[in-house]
Amino acid sequence: MIVVMKVDSGQKEIDDILKRLAEEGLTGHLSKGMERTVIGVVGQAYPELRDMLELLPGVAEVIPITKPYKLSSREFQPQDTVIKVGDLAIGGEELVVIAGPCAVESEEQVLETARAVKAAGANILRGGAFKPSTSPYGFRGLGEEGLKILAQAREETGLPIITEVLGPKEVDLVLRYADILQVGARNMQNFVLLDEVGKANKPVMLKRGMSATIQEWLLSAEYILSQGNRQLMLCERGIRTFETYTRNTMDVSAIPIIEKVSHLPIIADPSHSTGKWYLVAPLALAAVAAGADGLMIEVHPSPDHALKDGAQSLTFDNFQRLMAQLVGVVASLGRKMAGGTNG
Amino acid sequence: MIVVMKVDSGQKEIDDILKRLAEEGLTGHLSKGMERTVIGVVGQAYPELRDMLELLPGVAEVIPITKPYKLSSREFQPQDTVIKVGDLAIGGEELVVIAGPCAVESEEQVLETARAVKAAGANILRGGAFKPSTSPYGFRGLGEEGLKILAQAREETGLPIITEVLGPKEVDLVLRYADILQVGARNMQNFVLLDEVGKANKPVMLKRGMSATIQEWLLSAEYILSQGNRQLMLCERGIRTFETYTRNTMDVSAIPIIEKVSHLPIIADPSHSTGKWYLVAPLALAAVAAGADGLMIEVHPSPDHALKDGAQSLTFDNFQRLMAQLVGVVASLGRKMAGGTNG
Amino acid sequence: MIVVMKVDSGQKEIDDILKRLAEEGLTGHLSKGMERTVIGVVGQAYPELRDMLELLPGVAEVIPITKPYKLSSREFQPQDTVIKVGDLAIGGEELVVIAGPCAVESEEQVLETARAVKAAGANILRGGAFKPSTSPYGFRGLGEEGLKILAQAREETGLPIITEVLGPKEVDLVLRYADILQVGARNMQNFVLLDEVGKANKPVMLKRGMSATIQEWLLSAEYILSQGNRQLMLCERGIRTFETYTRNTMDVSAIPIIEKVSHLPIIADPSHSTGKWYLVAPLALAAVAAGADGLMIEVHPSPDHALKDGAQSLTFDNFQRLMAQLVGVVASLGRKMAGGTNG
Amino acid sequence: MIVVMKVDSGQKEIDDILKRLAEEGLTGHLSKGMERTVIGVVGQAYPELRDMLELLPGVAEVIPITKPYKLSSREFQPQDTVIKVGDLAIGGEELVVIAGPCAVESEEQVLETARAVKAAGANILRGGAFKPSTSPYGFRGLGEEGLKILAQAREETGLPIITEVLGPKEVDLVLRYADILQVGARNMQNFVLLDEVGKANKPVMLKRGMSATIQEWLLSAEYILSQGNRQLMLCERGIRTFETYTRNTMDVSAIPIIEKVSHLPIIADPSHSTGKWYLVAPLALAAVAAGADGLMIEVHPSPDHALKDGAQSLTFDNFQRLMAQLVGVVASLGRKMAGGTNG
Repeated sequence: MIVVMKVDSGQKEIDDILKRLAEEGLTGHLSKGMERTVIGVVGQAYPELRDMLELLPGVAEVIPITKPYKLSSREFQPQDTVIKVGDLAIGGEELVVIAGPCAVESEEQVLETARAVKAAGANILRGGAFKPSTSPYGFRGLGEEGLKILAQAREETGLPIITEVLGPKEVDLVLRYADILQVGARNMQNFVLLDEVGKANKPVMLKRGMSATIQEWLLSAEYILSQGNRQLMLCERGIRTFETYTRNTMDVSAIPIIEKVSHLPIIADPSHSTGKWYLVAPLALAAVAAGADGLMIEVHPSPDHALKDGAQSLTFDNFQRLMAQLVGVVASLGRKMAGGTNG
Repeated sequence: MIVVMKVDSGQKEIDDILKRLAEEGLTGHLSKGMERTVIGVVGQAYPELRDMLELLPGVAEVIPITKPYKLSSREFQPQDTVIKVGDLAIGGEELVVIAGPCAVESEEQVLETARAVKAAGANILRGGAFKPSTSPYGFRGLGEEGLKILAQAREETGLPIITEVLGPKEVDLVLRYADILQVGARNMQNFVLLDEVGKANKPVMLKRGMSATIQEWLLSAEYILSQGNRQLMLCERGIRTFETYTRNTMDVSAIPIIEKVSHLPIIADPSHSTGKWYLVAPLALAAVAAGADGLMIEVHPSPDHALKDGAQSLTFDNFQRLMAQLVGVVASLGRKMAGGTNG
Repeated sequence: MIVVMKVDSGQKEIDDILKRLAEEGLTGHLSKGMERTVIGVVGQAYPELRDMLELLPGVAEVIPITKPYKLSSREFQPQDTVIKVGDLAIGGEELVVIAGPCAVESEEQVLETARAVKAAGANILRGGAFKPSTSPYGFRGLGEEGLKILAQAREETGLPIITEVLGPKEVDLVLRYADILQVGARNMQNFVLLDEVGKANKPVMLKRGMSATIQEWLLSAEYILSQGNRQLMLCERGIRTFETYTRNTMDVSAIPIIEKVSHLPIIADPSHSTGKWYLVAPLALAAVAAGADGLMIEVHPSPDHALKDGAQSLTFDNFQRLMAQLVGVVASLGRKMAGGTNG
Repeated sequence: MIVVMKVDSGQKEIDDILKRLAEEGLTGHLSKGMERTVIGVVGQAYPELRDMLELLPGVAEVIPITKPYKLSSREFQPQDTVIKVGDLAIGGEELVVIAGPCAVESEEQVLETARAVKAAGANILRGGAFKPSTSPYGFRGLGEEGLKILAQAREETGLPIITEVLGPKEVDLVLRYADILQVGARNMQNFVLLDEVGKANKPVMLKRGMSATIQEWLLSAEYILSQGNRQLMLCERGIRTFETYTRNTMDVSAIPIIEKVSHLPIIADPSHSTGKWYLVAPLALAAVAAGADGLMIEVHPSPDHALKDGAQSLTFDNFQRLMAQLVGVVASLGRKMAGGTNG
């Protein structure tokens, strides 16, 4: 932490700051420049210290110089986190594809979709049994009934399943069925829920909040990691901007940034990012070209009859077409599709 | 709902849409313009219908024409909701002032602050016992111990208390102590929590999410109202924008907009909106001039020793000065300060 | 400027930076903390140096510690800039009100409006002869014909006039008619135009760009000031955010911030900020309560026949009502209306 | 255009609207639904009509149903615009790469860079002689001297040149040297400049404004097209969001959207989008995978000595590495590199 003094500050004010730092067990290292006097804080500074110091007379600004996240950082763990789900490895050499309907609507809808995405080369089945709906009058999911349908689809196809958990009370229930727990964008700062999934012994996928900075996202990851659960992957799903053509703006830059500053696997969700099915394939290819470890794609047997997010769902045919395109792009980047779709 | 057809769409596509509408028990009302053909949907349309119709061949766009919130709208209830808390009336003629520290730190800190804000004319005491901290390493509150301290301050000063509830499991506990439950910005779309406080028999204050549109905010209000709890007030606390000088950008326009489209009381929180103590007074005055029913202000005996949000807290002196300024402005608007501070 | 070294950087990298600084005639002041090594740069650093230093091996971050604007800062000039236009003083004790139609449409429209706003107490007449239209097919203004109409209205009513200049070639022409030149939001970073109005000998009002930070705005002000024109005032007119209810989001915080960091007068434009006439009065009152030196309000004899921005224009009656409300609020803040409307 | 009536509006209000439409030579087509009454406007409606109608009693909302841009739309011209610059075709099958320094600094710097990017396979040389600098104290370019250096580099390497024009007065000068005129992001709504380059007989590249919606961008394109210049290409260069890790957020979705709604070629600029050299390669690959027709990349012989934007410039080695990666990805998408780099 660095304390920048005002141009017109005097020795008395500097002395007061040094005294205040000493109270907190810290040392101030003085540096008088031509423009400004600056005090480097030596010792174990904590985030709230910044607010306190900024209120002292003579202080112009306090600048933190260390990132507030630790366990999720590359500095803490240089090698990539690779998460094993059955035979699958997420975060390694191979591109993992998660596909399925937005919401579990019926046994038939899920089974049909599971078979189709498996045939096209997907590795994991997605589907929501508990749905976060902006309106209380919207479809909120089938609950445990939906989880059972997902488990049935896993049994038939062998695909592991990922599904969202909405509240701390449902974590145990969802854990009984899911292979991967999903924490949704609206819950990225639901700290009670983060603590809870941090105690689970299954992998978690943490979606980026709609208006979360990358640093805030990693701090939410830190909640889960610091509870002991290190099987964590992140998912970019679009941020909120002024542009109204798309539902959100997919922040493709976040993919190489996460790869640089963190060891956690990064998945991209072009379906929620764009909200329009015809943008899903180009954005999926873009995410992979930018280095994503996996994709999460919404697929529905009949998007124009979907109970939720039909406008952004691919038909079976369109999904198959996308998978075919992916094979080439992934190969050109020197990587492979998980599950051997390449051969 | 209105279906706008593509320029080059034909009769076959129009017929298919009319058939699809009939399947859903709706009627399509055709209108051929010079520019486009448009189909008005007559009957009880539901939100998901939009996604479905947009996927049909020949459709350019589907436009909803009714607002999705109901119970929170002025159309549903023309007269203002006024919430009684003891002798106080929130949402009526009088301006209500909520003040206190960001977090409950100690008995001494809370009691001292409660006495000071009461003396200056505040009507309700605020203070967080459960704190949503961006980092798991930050201060997360004293928990029930903090609630007891707040109750003690209420006993001594007579001020009712408002405090945040973070998760559904803690609702019962917080209800035992608080007069008003606060749902924070990060939990605005924590639907499990909204359902829970919707069942409570005490008033709730719902803060606007950092990147929530006014419509999404009212839909979250709708969750609470539709569970039966009609003692609901809203709180504008700043939205996330590109500007970095302030922590958030206070959307002052939201105040007259809420007043126009909803009957719920609207409170403004200039402390979290700006993140800087020297902006609190001007923004508090601005919010009141724009029509706010109340203010929520952070006050701390010694902001430069605060465990949380010191940079945005007023000292006792600065708070008193603000209250004095408010008296004049409120009077000039033909309103009164609650609790008779005017005399 | 402060250079923060990476955790794993070594002596060789530090030496290279010190050498590089010496090349530029600067000195590096080393400070080894527990967390990081930091180098304070002593001497006349320039903005581009930051980019250069960030590319050197071992550097984690480079942090500027001085604000890049000078002439517009309070540090440079502690006392307020007060601009004289005839008997008017903008930026002093009195609140100045600028009113008139968005665009000059006809002699009758302008004269009628000028008389009405003068009668209601406005101090300056606004009206656009050159209009920036998002679409080339929209109304682009009457040009010099419009300037003549404005001059005629000044002659009749005595109100000075402010009007927009769109390009460097038109500066001379507009100067022949206007009392104050307006640079619009879309031109805030039209540096060629800023240079040109910086050479003019008449006051300039610089609107904030839709997505400009306060710092960028002040840097654009710096262009004008550094060309010699010190009769400059700023105008907040709303920034672009994700909220779609309003055309823009009025950043009311910018008003006290400008007052704190700069000596330039600050005007607020609630008409463009909100885009809706029924929000103009509450936001105008809010801006004044937050400390604005003036208001700019769109008024039209018949808003539903306006060629431009009718939806945000006040009728004569609504404008008169707003002026009456302003008198009370301004008095309660210990200020006065310019032109003696108070009495 | 569709007029949506308020729930409580009556026959008198509907009649008034129909009368008003008749005044404008339009017909209203009435449609009474269960929820609302709606009036479809038949005839040649114009943008300002919306504002007018919204002010009439009984009107809840007015909804435009046609896009305001015409010449730039796919509906107007279904086949792609392909721009010829010498042997190059921009907007066709082949990917075009534009590379060079941000600013022209010296003959040596430009010539050295031109040779290096040509050797690596670039097709067009970029370099700014007139620089838009946020601060008046920053580097503003060499002016005509810079244009001459660019022309010299063209002569030696055969690479056509693209360079920015800042104001209408400089258009003629820049036209004497450049093969393609660039209009920068800050000038996207400098309508005077758009008119001027719309009269030029050379290709223009229009960058997206930092906070421009796709629709506003296409309306600015419309200015140029409607003046007669149809050799126009667009360039996505990042939009302003709340995220501070990157300088801007590259809106990769804009690439397939432009391809869908417009026939104009779309170029991506990952250097300005991200502001960090290590993000340029992943974002360049992403843009190409999303369907971009070309890339614009900043390259500098010694980025840590650059006078402008060094932090986002690639070294010769890094640029060559990127070109090598591109060859594979482009081939996997079934396209080719312009200039035959593939073989």
